[in-house]
Amino acid sequence: MTSPPVRMTVLARVGQARAGILHTLHGDIPTPTFMPVGTQATVKTLLPEQVADTGAGVVLANAFHCMLRPGAERIAKAGGLHAFMRWPRAVLTDSGGFQIFSLAALRSISEEGVRFRSPIDGSRWFVDPERSMRVQMDLGADIAMAFDECIRLPAHPAEVRRAVDRTTRWAERCLAAHDRADQALFGIVQGGIDPEERRRSAEALVPMDFPGYAVGGLSVGESRADMAATLAVTTPHLPVGKPRYLMGVGTPEDLHLAITHGIDMADCVHPTRMARHGTVWSGDGRLQIKSARYADDADPIEPECDCLTCVRFDRRYVHHLVRAGEWLAHTLLSIHNLRHLQRRVERWRASILDGTFQPAPVP
Amino acid sequence: MTSPPVRMTVLARVGQARAGILHTLHGDIPTPTFMPVGTQATVKTLLPEQVADTGAGVVLANAFHCMLRPGAERIAKAGGLHAFMRWPRAVLTDSGGFQIFSLAALRSISEEGVRFRSPIDGSRWFVDPERSMRVQMDLGADIAMAFDECIRLPAHPAEVRRAVDRTTRWAERCLAAHDRADQALFGIVQGGIDPEERRRSAEALVPMDFPGYAVGGLSVGESRADMAATLAVTTPHLPVGKPRYLMGVGTPEDLHLAITHGIDMADCVHPTRMARHGTVWSGDGRLQIKSARYADDADPIEPECDCLTCVRFDRRYVHHLVRAGEWLAHTLLSIHNLRHLQRRVERWRASILDGTFQPAPVP
Repeated sequence: MTSPPVRMTVLARVGQARAGILHTLHGDIPTPTFMPVGTQATVKTLLPEQVADTGAGVVLANAFHCMLRPGAERIAKAGGLHAFMRWPRAVLTDSGGFQIFSLAALRSISEEGVRFRSPIDGSRWFVDPERSMRVQMDLGADIAMAFDECIRLPAHPAEVRRAVDRTTRWAERCLAAHDRADQALFGIVQGGIDPEERRRSAEALVPMDFPGYAVGGLSVGESRADMAATLAVTTPHLPVGKPRYLMGVGTPEDLHLAITHGIDMADCVHPTRMARHGTVWSGDGRLQIKSARYADDADPIEPECDCLTCVRFDRRYVHHLVRAGEWLAHTLLSIHNLRHLQRRVERWRASILDGTFQPAPVP
Repeated sequence: MTSPPVRMTVLARVGQARAGILHTLHGDIPTPTFMPVGTQATVKTLLPEQVADTGAGVVLANAFHCMLRPGAERIAKAGGLHAFMRWPRAVLTDSGGFQIFSLAALRSISEEGVRFRSPIDGSRWFVDPERSMRVQMDLGADIAMAFDECIRLPAHPAEVRRAVDRTTRWAERCLAAHDRADQALFGIVQGGIDPEERRRSAEALVPMDFPGYAVGGLSVGESRADMAATLAVTTPHLPVGKPRYLMGVGTPEDLHLAITHGIDMADCVHPTRMARHGTVWSGDGRLQIKSARYADDADPIEPECDCLTCVRFDRRYVHHLVRAGEWLAHTLLSIHNLRHLQRRVERWRASILDGTFQPAPVP
């Protein structure tokens, strides 16, 4: 096809930090952007318009979960994830790799691919790069991700190296198997926290000319200093004109760090999961809204926030809902946390555009 | 004050069935009307505007639950239930009696009132007619309910008679204690399934000139034939110009019966509870949306329904959400069930207005 389905325009830079636009067939998304996670083809407790109202332009769905239930072919028959979920904006699917590798005792890995048992019903599955591509093409997201090998940290240098090489070979198989013209396939850089391996991984993948690149294998338990150092030695090896996606990052502090190092996209379950545990961001801090101190508090969760929750409800009511175990609390707190994060990202973007961006403190 | 805060206009009748308007300080509500239950000052899983969009003009909140948590004084301080919940339409509170009497081993009853222990934290409480009035005046609903004695059925005739007499004496105490001019206090007719006791209860309460009357003590396990027979001998003793409220009724079939016998208002947790168990009304029947038969079904839950769920989502997606244990399913199914019931009530109302109303079959 003449034009790739996902393209990046970089509008401004401050140091490595970039502000731009991610062009997709489901809309142009201002970057940097935070992508809420809809693990099972739904952002937990929220209607699609509630997710859109938080400012999200892309949601992530997990290929692993969607494949096991309701099944990728079923979603394909329904017209793909956009139609199935009734989400009109962009969708990104991960490859399933991260979840499969997290199954630990339930899976076995070879060069060929990964065998595992479904945690839902114990059924036997086999996923390799070709199968991951088939599943993701069926799911029909705007952006699919290469099937990579994720290792746990800390790891022996030889293991890191071996995983980088396998990720490279699997990336080639993914490229060969992927043939959906309206979907972009992103490569994933691995290499743990070893600068040399990160460089090797990036240099192997960049010539394959993926339309975008992810930094994988971070936010898996390493220190923030290691995350920062690894980002600093990875993004400079990635093409300037293509989008860069940091997988699994979702606190304001980590997003700031990611943006400082030139990341355009990030995703994480953190804001919505935190919400379901009754924790919300407000200003530069966080509140445990269940705390007795909020029982009579007539302020919104965050007075300057423009989300539905803050515009319409006060802390004492949300406090009551959380205490009473009412599910509406999850909805209200999820809306707030997602909007809070988008507002922060919007402010960082604006400051990159006007040249006043302040880099994240070195951890 | 010159005009009571809640008034009834009867516009048309077919047999005992009536169509009219319930005038409140928070809007005019077409009757008959179904009132969703917001037990803990929230209709479970729904935002206020989602409740309003189903066509509800009144929601019911339970004084018992609100009193225990977050506390009636706290809600008063927040400006009452309307302000606390951000619900702009009418609110009705029950007296707490039904829940307290349901505590069984946890409560002891005397002429004075009822002592019980909180099921939340074991704390000791005492509620009598005066305390129920104080609590409901604090909650600030448009309609408060008298504190009555609810007995279980079947019951010995002497026990029914004793409860009717106590309910009458307590009604007088409620009237004496109630002094909130912007709130209407409704009386509650008791008497089990004994026509003579129902007549006695009604004839004792009607001279007290409550602005509205409820039929209590039904839908507590008696047969539908007994419910129908009891309604038939009760509503004729109630003033024609005042609203009549059947407590705790919420299937389409029982609502039809209630309307046939001249009921204007009813409430029940049934539609929303049923939704949380994955059961939805469609046409004249009900669907278990979790059933495998809906896994690939591209129809809405009820093709002719105009609710958000039916307009926007199909059965296969809702099926997936239920199977996957996603909370959004509760929201979507609650919206549908409430709207389904309102649509039925709206059709009964229209048929009373145009004279074509068909009475419910005699059970």
